[in-house]
Amino acid sequence: MSSSPQLLQVLRDGVPRTRADLVAETGLARSTVTLRLDALLRTGLVRSEAGTSTGGRPPIFVRFDPGARSVLAVDLGAAHVAVAVTDLDGTVLAEHREDLDIAAGPAPVLDLAARRGQDLLDQVQAGGAGPLAGIGIGLPGPVEQATGRPRTPPIMPGWDGADVVGVLGRRFGVPVLVDNDVDLMALGEHVTVYPDTAHLLFVKVATGVGAGIVAGHRLVRGADGTAGDLGHVAVPGGAPVRCRCGNTGCLEALASGTAIVRSVRGLGHEVRRLEEVQGLLEDDGVAEVVRLAGQSLGAVLASCVNLLNPSVIVIGGPLAHEPSPLFEGIEQMVRGRSLPLATSRLQVVASRTHGRAGLLGGARAVIDRVLDPAAMDAPAGAEPAGG
Amino acid sequence: MSSSPQLLQVLRDGVPRTRADLVAETGLARSTVTLRLDALLRTGLVRSEAGTSTGGRPPIFVRFDPGARSVLAVDLGAAHVAVAVTDLDGTVLAEHREDLDIAAGPAPVLDLAARRGQDLLDQVQAGGAGPLAGIGIGLPGPVEQATGRPRTPPIMPGWDGADVVGVLGRRFGVPVLVDNDVDLMALGEHVTVYPDTAHLLFVKVATGVGAGIVAGHRLVRGADGTAGDLGHVAVPGGAPVRCRCGNTGCLEALASGTAIVRSVRGLGHEVRRLEEVQGLLEDDGVAEVVRLAGQSLGAVLASCVNLLNPSVIVIGGPLAHEPSPLFEGIEQMVRGRSLPLATSRLQVVASRTHGRAGLLGGARAVIDRVLDPAAMDAPAGAEPAGG
Repeated sequence: MSSSPQLLQVLRDGVPRTRADLVAETGLARSTVTLRLDALLRTGLVRSEAGTSTGGRPPIFVRFDPGARSVLAVDLGAAHVAVAVTDLDGTVLAEHREDLDIAAGPAPVLDLAARRGQDLLDQVQAGGAGPLAGIGIGLPGPVEQATGRPRTPPIMPGWDGADVVGVLGRRFGVPVLVDNDVDLMALGEHVTVYPDTAHLLFVKVATGVGAGIVAGHRLVRGADGTAGDLGHVAVPGGAPVRCRCGNTGCLEALASGTAIVRSVRGLGHEVRRLEEVQGLLEDDGVAEVVRLAGQSLGAVLASCVNLLNPSVIVIGGPLAHEPSPLFEGIEQMVRGRSLPLATSRLQVVASRTHGRAGLLGGARAVIDRVLDPAAMDAPAGAEPAGG
Repeated sequence: MSSSPQLLQVLRDGVPRTRADLVAETGLARSTVTLRLDALLRTGLVRSEAGTSTGGRPPIFVRFDPGARSVLAVDLGAAHVAVAVTDLDGTVLAEHREDLDIAAGPAPVLDLAARRGQDLLDQVQAGGAGPLAGIGIGLPGPVEQATGRPRTPPIMPGWDGADVVGVLGRRFGVPVLVDNDVDLMALGEHVTVYPDTAHLLFVKVATGVGAGIVAGHRLVRGADGTAGDLGHVAVPGGAPVRCRCGNTGCLEALASGTAIVRSVRGLGHEVRRLEEVQGLLEDDGVAEVVRLAGQSLGAVLASCVNLLNPSVIVIGGPLAHEPSPLFEGIEQMVRGRSLPLATSRLQVVASRTHGRAGLLGGARAVIDRVLDPAAMDAPAGAEPAGG
C-alpha cells in the first residue's frame, strides 16, 4: 500500500500527537489509524503518555521513542575499523576505533568488528539502550547492490564476493546493510551537517580516492553501485603516470594516499601512512607534493562540478584540514575549469564529522530501513541487502 | 498535506475504479474520498461512468480522462523551433518544425513559437481536444530554476534574463515551465523509451554539446540548474585547442557541431550545418573528423560513466545514427577508460524519439505539474517557474 501515509514517518519528528491529530493530519479513517497505532505501540517504537488534564479526562498522546532500538554501525577502511552504537535518532551512544589490515581477509576482520560491536552493545544496553535493530557496514570498495557482496575490490584482497550479510546476520540475528564506505560518508555528512543542501559531493582522500554523490537530497549509487568511483578517471592535463589498472594518468596514480606517501618518501621522509604527512607540511617539498595532488583532484572535480553542479564539496580523510596546500590545489583547478554559473555559490570544505561520517551514514541507512514499515514486515533475521 | 495519498496519482494509470476501490486502496476515510473525488469530477480530469449491472444497481466507475486538457510543448534550438500539442498522456496530437536563427532574439522567436503553437491548438481543439493546461519550453542554454530566465546563454545572444514565462504566460494565460533543452530531452527519452531504466545520460551533439542526467528515475539539475553542462569540461588527453571560453581543450572546442563543421570545411567541403555532414561520411577524411570528435566525446563520457554509472547513454542530434564513426569513437574511449564493473551492462545508443525528445520532455514536465494537486491549487495564470 505504497500510497498510504505512514504513521511512523509522521511521528518521526518527535512531536507528540493525539489519535485525533493523526486522523486530521493523514486523512486516514479513524479505524485505520487505531489499527496501525496499536501495531506500532506493540513494537515499542511508539509510546503513549497522558497529557495534562484541562478539566475532563486527560488526553492521550503518542510519540516516537528513538531509544526503543539500538543500531550498530561499522566503518572498515584499508587500515582501520571503527564501530559505533546509535539510537534511532542516529545519536552515537558509544564508539571504538582501532588499526587493522583489511588484507587479513573477511573472517578475522569481521570477527574483530563483531567482537568490538558486541562489547559496545553490552555496555550501552547495561545502561538501558534498546535491543539491536540492524547493522550498517561500509567497505572501501565496490559493493553489489542486490547481494551486499564486495565485487573485485582492488584494495581488499581476499574479499571478492565475501558474504558479509550472512556472517554478521547469523552472528547478531538482525538485518545487515552493506554499502560502499564513501556512499555512507556522503549520507552521514549530508544528514548531520548539510540536511538542507540538495546537491553535495563527498570526496574521500585516503589509501584510495572515491566520491559519494548526493543529488536532490538522495544518494546516487548508479546502475551497478559504482557511481562516484573516481580512482580511475583520467586527470585532464595530468602527468602520464602509469596506473596499476593499465591506463595512464588515473586520479589514483596522482592523488591517492598511496601516491602521496610514495612521493613524500621520494623526498627522503620515512613516512608509511597518509596520517603522517600532515605533520610534514612545513617542508616546502612535501607541501608541493600535496598541492600537486590537490591540483589533480581539482582537475577531476572541475569536471564533476560541470556535470553535477553541487553546492558543497566535502573533502574527507587524513589531509582534510583547512587551510592547506591540498585545498589550495583543489580550489585553483575547480575555479579555473568550471563554469562561473556552477561555481559562484560552490563551497569546498573539510569534513565536519570528525572522521565519523561513515559511521553516521551506516547508522542512518539502517534507521531509514527500520522506520520504513514496508521493510519491517520482512523477517528480522539476516537477509540479502544492499543499502 | 504531503503525507496524503493523491487520488489523481492513483487514477493516473487509467484503470477505472469505484469509490469503494479508492477507499480500500488508499486507506482514506470514505468522506475524504467523496470530497476529493467531487472536486476532481468538477475539473473534468476525472469522469464517472456506469458499469455493467450484475443484477442490482450498476456500479459507478471513475477514471482519469487524458483528453481533458491539452499541453503545448516548444523545443528551441540554435537554428530551429519545434512545437507540439499533446494530451495529458503525452501523446502528440499535432506538431510543426521550422528553421530559425535563435540570435534574432526573444521577441520575434517567442512570437513565432506562439503563433505556430496557437495554430496547432486551433487545429486540435476544432477536433475536440481539451483546453490548454500549460506550456513547457526548452532553451539551448542555462536556465535559472527559480525564475525560468536564461542566464548568460552562450549561443543565445540577446536572451540573457529574458522573461520567457511572462511573455508566453500573458499570451496564453496558463503556467509556463522553462528548462534547459537537454534536460527535457533526457526526460522525454526516459519516459517514452526507457521508463524502467533508473540511470540514464542523454547527450546532445548539435551546435553545442550538453547532457541531461537521469539518476534514480529523476532528472538531476544541480544546485544552479547547470548539471550536465559538458561543453567546457576538459577532454583528458585532448588536443590543446583554444576554446572561446579562454581555456584550452574544452569538449565544445573538439566535438561540438560548430567544431565538426569547421574541420569538415577545412577539408574543402562547403557545409554550413551539422545536418549536412552525415551525407559526407563516405569521405574518409570526413569520417576521420567525426571519429575524432567521437573519441573526445568518449573520453569525457568515460569520466561520466565512472562518476554516474548509468546503464544507458543516449546520443541525440543530427549525427546520432548507428553504426557510424561517431559511435565507434565514443565506444572506443568509454570502454577503454571506464571501470569494467560500470561498463559490463552499459549501452551507448542513438536516440529513438526521432528528434522529438525535447518536445516529449517539455510536455511531460507540464503534465507532471498539472496532475500534481499541490500545483493545481496555484493560480492558473502565468507564474515564475523552473520546471
